[in-house]
Amino acid sequence: MKLPDKKKNFLKWYSEIISYANIVDNRSPVKGSNVIMPYGYSIWESITKKLDAELKKTGHKNAYFPLFIPEDYLEKEAEHFDGFVPEVAWVTRAGDKELERKLALRPTSETIMYDMFRLWIRSHGDLPFKINQFCNIIRFDTKETKPLLRDREFLWSEGHTCHATAEDAERQVRESMKIYEAVYKLCCMSYLILRRPKHDTFAGAIYSIAYDCPLPDGRTLQIGTTHNLGQGFSKAFEIVFQDKDKQNKFVYQTCYGLSTRLIAAIIGLHGDEKGLIIPPYIAPIQVVIVPIYKKGQKELVIKESEKLKKKLLKAGFKVELDDREGYTPGWKFNEWEVRGVPIRIEIGPRDIENQQLVLVRRDKPVPTNKETIAIQDVTKEVKRILKEINDYLQKRADKLLEDSISHPKTYEELIEIQNTKRGFSRVNWCGDIECAEKIKEETGADIRGTREDIKEKPAGKCIVCGKEAKEVVYVAAAY
Amino acid sequence: MKLPDKKKNFLKWYSEIISYANIVDNRSPVKGSNVIMPYGYSIWESITKKLDAELKKTGHKNAYFPLFIPEDYLEKEAEHFDGFVPEVAWVTRAGDKELERKLALRPTSETIMYDMFRLWIRSHGDLPFKINQFCNIIRFDTKETKPLLRDREFLWSEGHTCHATAEDAERQVRESMKIYEAVYKLCCMSYLILRRPKHDTFAGAIYSIAYDCPLPDGRTLQIGTTHNLGQGFSKAFEIVFQDKDKQNKFVYQTCYGLSTRLIAAIIGLHGDEKGLIIPPYIAPIQVVIVPIYKKGQKELVIKESEKLKKKLLKAGFKVELDDREGYTPGWKFNEWEVRGVPIRIEIGPRDIENQQLVLVRRDKPVPTNKETIAIQDVTKEVKRILKEINDYLQKRADKLLEDSISHPKTYEELIEIQNTKRGFSRVNWCGDIECAEKIKEETGADIRGTREDIKEKPAGKCIVCGKEAKEVVYVAAAY
Repeated sequence: MKLPDKKKNFLKWYSEIISYANIVDNRSPVKGSNVIMPYGYSIWESITKKLDAELKKTGHKNAYFPLFIPEDYLEKEAEHFDGFVPEVAWVTRAGDKELERKLALRPTSETIMYDMFRLWIRSHGDLPFKINQFCNIIRFDTKETKPLLRDREFLWSEGHTCHATAEDAERQVRESMKIYEAVYKLCCMSYLILRRPKHDTFAGAIYSIAYDCPLPDGRTLQIGTTHNLGQGFSKAFEIVFQDKDKQNKFVYQTCYGLSTRLIAAIIGLHGDEKGLIIPPYIAPIQVVIVPIYKKGQKELVIKESEKLKKKLLKAGFKVELDDREGYTPGWKFNEWEVRGVPIRIEIGPRDIENQQLVLVRRDKPVPTNKETIAIQDVTKEVKRILKEINDYLQKRADKLLEDSISHPKTYEELIEIQNTKRGFSRVNWCGDIECAEKIKEETGADIRGTREDIKEKPAGKCIVCGKEAKEVVYVAAAY
Repeated sequence: MKLPDKKKNFLKWYSEIISYANIVDNRSPVKGSNVIMPYGYSIWESITKKLDAELKKTGHKNAYFPLFIPEDYLEKEAEHFDGFVPEVAWVTRAGDKELERKLALRPTSETIMYDMFRLWIRSHGDLPFKINQFCNIIRFDTKETKPLLRDREFLWSEGHTCHATAEDAERQVRESMKIYEAVYKLCCMSYLILRRPKHDTFAGAIYSIAYDCPLPDGRTLQIGTTHNLGQGFSKAFEIVFQDKDKQNKFVYQTCYGLSTRLIAAIIGLHGDEKGLIIPPYIAPIQVVIVPIYKKGQKELVIKESEKLKKKLLKAGFKVELDDREGYTPGWKFNEWEVRGVPIRIEIGPRDIENQQLVLVRRDKPVPTNKETIAIQDVTKEVKRILKEINDYLQKRADKLLEDSISHPKTYEELIEIQNTKRGFSRVNWCGDIECAEKIKEETGADIRGTREDIKEKPAGKCIVCGKEAKEVVYVAAAY
């Protein structure tokens, strides 16, 4: 199998690899509504397990709200309605009857949740109030769909919180960021943390912070967002609490979301010309054992392989023994490389005789990828190498991010970069939407926002119009 | 708070308790599509955690398939189509556009999954093939909706398997039963395991086995089903594998489902006149600590309560410290009784002085519900009492099932029972659907099927028509 060049033809590489590696089957009959295969879903399970633990640790409680949202609910917050209605799927019939009022399938759950929050929240003793929901989300985007990158149905976690003061809501935004960053770390992600410009803020929010991950073709992918909603929704939905001073006040709100799209970023960021490389702590299979034997040696080698598998399973690793007949070891090596398993163990009669094993790591090239270790040390060594792979992937991802940032000095240079190698371009901006639109028109790239993790002061003029710059922003073309 | 009589007016009791106890909020704007509140959702998390572990242990892999199903997919298996179409919700619009073909929201996932299985399964080496999906399900039932008992949207786990032989499929049905029974055990459930009569078999299956739980008002609730699908679907969807003999053959299939309806059964089966009693191993809160103090004692008591909470959390229990101000201990006792927390710990200054605690268990009446224990033994004692509550609830549920079974000798007696106390009536049946329909007409009760766990031979005539009986069946009115 020969994959397309990842850098030059990323989308082709991506669409082939997710299929070869059994991540997604896009032969589903409904465009943009794909099948997440067990191998891909297992990555999502690792992500949600970590996310769930972090959310619970910080006092979030899980709940489940309806898929169906009446039209008038969506309408209650005007900006929100305008933002989502073009992509809403509507149920109009049930059985053979027309419904009296058509029902939206949730494109996000603010409106259906906040109407309940209104009933549940009474006093300052109920705050802070933190809800999370794992569910499916429906957005009939008119743009071209791409599995996991842009789906009409996807899975996500959505956090929604209410607070007594603006300061508490602000603190909550920081807490949600820490939670997401813990998840990203497990996936060895690199990203810029950007506060979106006003014109790209979540519909109904006062500001939005997003995580943008660089992909190999120079485009970026938003892998999570957190929004400070202020009192916009609480006023629209009348979410009121009695404060310590006995006054009735509107709550301050935040919300945040992280979806199966993160899987696409993981694949894009870490994969290489041979296929996937799945970060060790979210890998569905961390170690694959491939027995190697000639006629008459099978029984011995399989027996040792099974012992090894048992030992590694007992130590808590995710292990697969590939004892399939009718496939050569070379064929198996290739299959597990394509599927991105972090460690392969090769074991043959001579290894057993010498009580040793060959460990092959997926992240490094020949010949730095092989180590011979003593069988008795296998759990210790596997643990060490998984950690090393994790750290190496993180370092490589960080370098990729660093390399993706350009510093054009002129408008022409910006346009040139955004029409060729792309990536993030760090530029000064006056804050006028016209300048953003001009860049978009010439390159397809957007102003993605200002750095949230560090303060950057503009020194100079807007790269588009030459007027006084107000902000240092990052320009990139996004998926 | 005074609850309605649970036996005489179960549905009123049920609808009040799920609201008081924060299980479900049924004030959602869309009828039959309710909000599962955090306290209720936590029960579902405990159920799915156990279910997921059992499914994985037996080689099932989780995946995610589309919510949307094209109409022609549903039509492929004719019985299946007829069975589900009356309750299907249809998406016909997206944004402001009519869709070219309307899309069903999954009422179950056989058709969308099996079209993929056709592509994935190639040879006997791929079998057995076991997939599970946790997802939301949409059925616009025309009957009256009742939260968790009969919803238009609910959550479930659906298992789907493929096998090389009919014997393997038969074995799989038994495996799925063991899995479900392990989950039910955690919930202290009692039930009859019944093979449904032909006319009540799952649409497209060759037979269906169901778990029917007795509720206090004499009705029963189906809390899980497992179906042997034979080759009906595999022929309709062309799921073919190459066998060891190089012949192409259709796979044999099974499927099974367990939904949030189980929560309704747990509530109905275990609750009492004071409110919920949640089985200890699925309880969102296993132990609640209520500090009791007068002026000037607060600091000491709260400090000790927090120490206690920490100790119990560290030991792995789910613990809540109710240190809310402005509520009397008596008010708190009542609240946690209504919400069914298995153990309440009362702690006051004198207890601290004597290094002791009062443990109050939810399942037993005054005065057998109280024990005084030494503080230093608290984790050991909590562990013991949770186990005792679990065993007691199981015993009580088993007794409830036993008591719910009647043995009418005549048709008149059957009608009398099914029009009054109801429960399961064990009777002889000729197998004719007319006789089933006659019972249904006069009592609303159905022939729920024959025992699957034990063999029962009919001795006598059909209780309705007097012809030779073919089966011993159980009659009951179901939710």
